[in-house]
Amino acid sequence: MGQAPVGGRSDWLAAQLRRAIADGRLPVGTRLPATRVLAAELGVSRGVVTEAYQRLGADGQLAGRGRGGTVVVAAPVPLMSGRRTPAAGADVDPARADVDSARAVVDTARADMARTDMARAGTAHSAAPFAAPFAAPFAAPFAAPPDADVFDALRAAPARIDLSPGVPDLAAFPRAAWLRAERAVLADLPADGFGYGDPRGAPALRQAVAHWLARNRGIGADPDEVLIVAGTAQGLGLLAQVLSRAGIREIAVEEPGSLGVRQHLTHWGLATPPVPVDDEGVRVDALRASGARAVLLTPAHQFPTGVVLGGGRRRELMRWATDGGVDGGLIVEDDYDAEHRYDRAPVPALRSLLPERVCYAGSVSKLLAPALRVGWLLAPAAHREALVEAKRFADLGNAVLPQLVLARLMESGELERRLRLARQRHRRRRDAMIEAIRTRLPGATVHGAAAGLHLTLTFDHDGAGPSDTDLAAAALARGVKVQPLSWHAQRPYRPGLVLGYAARSPGEIAEGVAVLGEIMARG
Amino acid sequence: MGQAPVGGRSDWLAAQLRRAIADGRLPVGTRLPATRVLAAELGVSRGVVTEAYQRLGADGQLAGRGRGGTVVVAAPVPLMSGRRTPAAGADVDPARADVDSARAVVDTARADMARTDMARAGTAHSAAPFAAPFAAPFAAPFAAPPDADVFDALRAAPARIDLSPGVPDLAAFPRAAWLRAERAVLADLPADGFGYGDPRGAPALRQAVAHWLARNRGIGADPDEVLIVAGTAQGLGLLAQVLSRAGIREIAVEEPGSLGVRQHLTHWGLATPPVPVDDEGVRVDALRASGARAVLLTPAHQFPTGVVLGGGRRRELMRWATDGGVDGGLIVEDDYDAEHRYDRAPVPALRSLLPERVCYAGSVSKLLAPALRVGWLLAPAAHREALVEAKRFADLGNAVLPQLVLARLMESGELERRLRLARQRHRRRRDAMIEAIRTRLPGATVHGAAAGLHLTLTFDHDGAGPSDTDLAAAALARGVKVQPLSWHAQRPYRPGLVLGYAARSPGEIAEGVAVLGEIMARG
Repeated sequence: MGQAPVGGRSDWLAAQLRRAIADGRLPVGTRLPATRVLAAELGVSRGVVTEAYQRLGADGQLAGRGRGGTVVVAAPVPLMSGRRTPAAGADVDPARADVDSARAVVDTARADMARTDMARAGTAHSAAPFAAPFAAPFAAPFAAPPDADVFDALRAAPARIDLSPGVPDLAAFPRAAWLRAERAVLADLPADGFGYGDPRGAPALRQAVAHWLARNRGIGADPDEVLIVAGTAQGLGLLAQVLSRAGIREIAVEEPGSLGVRQHLTHWGLATPPVPVDDEGVRVDALRASGARAVLLTPAHQFPTGVVLGGGRRRELMRWATDGGVDGGLIVEDDYDAEHRYDRAPVPALRSLLPERVCYAGSVSKLLAPALRVGWLLAPAAHREALVEAKRFADLGNAVLPQLVLARLMESGELERRLRLARQRHRRRRDAMIEAIRTRLPGATVHGAAAGLHLTLTFDHDGAGPSDTDLAAAALARGVKVQPLSWHAQRPYRPGLVLGYAARSPGEIAEGVAVLGEIMARG
Repeated sequence: MGQAPVGGRSDWLAAQLRRAIADGRLPVGTRLPATRVLAAELGVSRGVVTEAYQRLGADGQLAGRGRGGTVVVAAPVPLMSGRRTPAAGADVDPARADVDSARAVVDTARADMARTDMARAGTAHSAAPFAAPFAAPFAAPFAAPPDADVFDALRAAPARIDLSPGVPDLAAFPRAAWLRAERAVLADLPADGFGYGDPRGAPALRQAVAHWLARNRGIGADPDEVLIVAGTAQGLGLLAQVLSRAGIREIAVEEPGSLGVRQHLTHWGLATPPVPVDDEGVRVDALRASGARAVLLTPAHQFPTGVVLGGGRRRELMRWATDGGVDGGLIVEDDYDAEHRYDRAPVPALRSLLPERVCYAGSVSKLLAPALRVGWLLAPAAHREALVEAKRFADLGNAVLPQLVLARLMESGELERRLRLARQRHRRRRDAMIEAIRTRLPGATVHGAAAGLHLTLTFDHDGAGPSDTDLAAAALARGVKVQPLSWHAQRPYRPGLVLGYAARSPGEIAEGVAVLGEIMARG
């Protein structure tokens, strides 16, 4: 059995193939392209194609014929329930039913990519006769204001070069060290350890996180204060539930600020009044004026601008949080990428200064890999018990084995070694991106590149240029995935792009930025 | 770094030790008992004690002195926030400050156990001078009607023999096969697989679950219909959120029926009107009379009674579900232990009969281990999109590596091989329990032993005997952990006990049942 890559690309390709077989564009007997060939044509990894072929093989629609390749052997079985099937014949040119199968599959895929690109940067593909009936598994990401599934849509869209922000160098995941630690965990764990666990998390990981935060973030915390969660996304959701029950109905957020975070808070019933960020970080005067009793901040490296919260602002913020006595303001500190910094001293966490007013959220998503879904929450004592209850009723606690593996990697120093290596690699990639921007996008301004895993570009073209969603759509149509800055603002904002560099090689970065430069040059 | 067992026992012991050091019962210089000795005295695994010692070692309160053993080297650092500390001196007998340290620690622990046992079955320990100030990390489990944290409290309570229901033979967890599969997954996974994934779950696992359900439960489902969740607990929570938003405010439950399930549904805002279960399963006439539009059932092996839903009842239920057309009833099928059966043919899942009216929930908690936190939900098409959204905003999807490992174990046939072996072992253990009950508890009636991982006892003593919570408390005081049947009923019900046999050896089972017999004999 093959391992599918995450992210729905195999899913998406399998769906395309199913439909092409269902409506006769790939008749029984057709030989499909070799996985290697199709992967290269689509700009996806070979595993994506292999997995899609295997899925249809499992359905009985495809079969391997040795040197004869992979062949369509049956049309799909009709599904029982609620699945859309393309209207028979509609929009399909019967004259093309016999075209070379590779061409048909590639056209199908490319047409799907082209749909994301309707507004301005249209290419020849958008006129392909296959375009209409082949909906992507999620809506096209840039066609409308971002919806709840927009990040899934963007992830599912195929691209040669993915410059989405928010991921570290995933190729550096310490596979061997992970496996060694897992072997040790499996050797040591008593049988009862495989039963239901403590909803607060495994004691070993809570202790390892407390040590990690002491060493790396200047936070002194007892392991009992640490709640292990399934990533910051879950942590913020649990906190939103607890705050709602405590009568807090809104939480101020930075403007601009993370779209994803805002979507989660909104889903859980909190309003998110925007408070502007300037070169010193969040404007505390505006926060006061908003009347909000809670605020979510990214003080170490503001997302997306990369600004560091200045000393004066920190002091103002402390006063805001403590002014009301026990009813003072609550600060939610999303410390999402603070371990990654290049040209500056570390910024201490707000949590280290004011533990009773700060709820601290961290995770391994930017340290190791988002796919691990492990994070931690350190809440003021007043909210701790309610958070444990929310976690219990969310899922009874995180899975145990990955917690114990991670605890070993943290306590043995392995994770810090990895982080030091990653920092060097990330810095080179950041430098490559800045250099490419200097030469290919000379009109753009770079923000927030001293730390983190992404930088932000803005374009000051007096409102005459394209919108940043159109730019992002045009880039995706040319195989380069980026996020428009406007996604991360609630009010009109300067057009810009948010570019992740940590997960791509210098060569890919140069190529991706060159594509952006060509698009900008065409205007 | 040692691996802590799950379940808060180390946590609890560490807290006891911290308090004993803080209030001077274990002064600096005291030598603690060897881990082996203390573990035996407390009836916990040695890892629990080792982990507790290591935690205090990390705090700087204990230190290893080679052959000199483990010694108290410092009193604890006061904590910043909201931690209760025992009132200085209160309830502590200063004359005992110098007692042998092992005795003090054991007394502390035993006193804590004895607190669970206040009503009737009091032992000498409950009068120990240390009892009052040492609260368990959670409330004593049987002292009051069960609270939200009652299962955590029961899990945290030390016991020699744990006959709690709901876990398979955890000692049989396939550690080597898991590690082999993980090695293969780590070797194959493309780098992007470590990024954010599909909130619906990894395609490979969704496909493996579809195949598994086809082979083992007679369910024909497309992988696209499978939503991977963090165990049935999360699945039911997501469903409750979706039903609430769809205007459904109550879901009928079986009476008696799982307390844990009811707690989850209630937490998420659904009322749980009880519908009686008789020897044929849920009373569909009573369900109709309740007016509820949704019902949660355990048709294959009713929890806790073990009744199988009869053929006539199935047909009645189908009519109830389809009578209202598109507004017909929704059945939530909690298929929690259906793969385990001994003396009867498999019972097909309701989902296989009526896919558009049944939301099916399954998990690996009873197949492999609850600590994995992996389950699946197959919902009618009308609710599927909302469930994906609920899962996205719960945690962005399950962690990827364990999903892919599990997919391999399922697709390779390894999991089915394990299940066949487990079935033989579980049957022997069930037989041992029935034999012990026959000889030691001749007045008890056994229910539901033809399948599953637990059986239920009832006592017909005309209301003259002790309550089942008192029985469970007395058993816990003697080191045997069981659940009272009354926990699992919303209305007054026959007294009884729910006993898990799958995770314990025949010898432990015989010993545990013997203790129950002695308690019953004493009246």
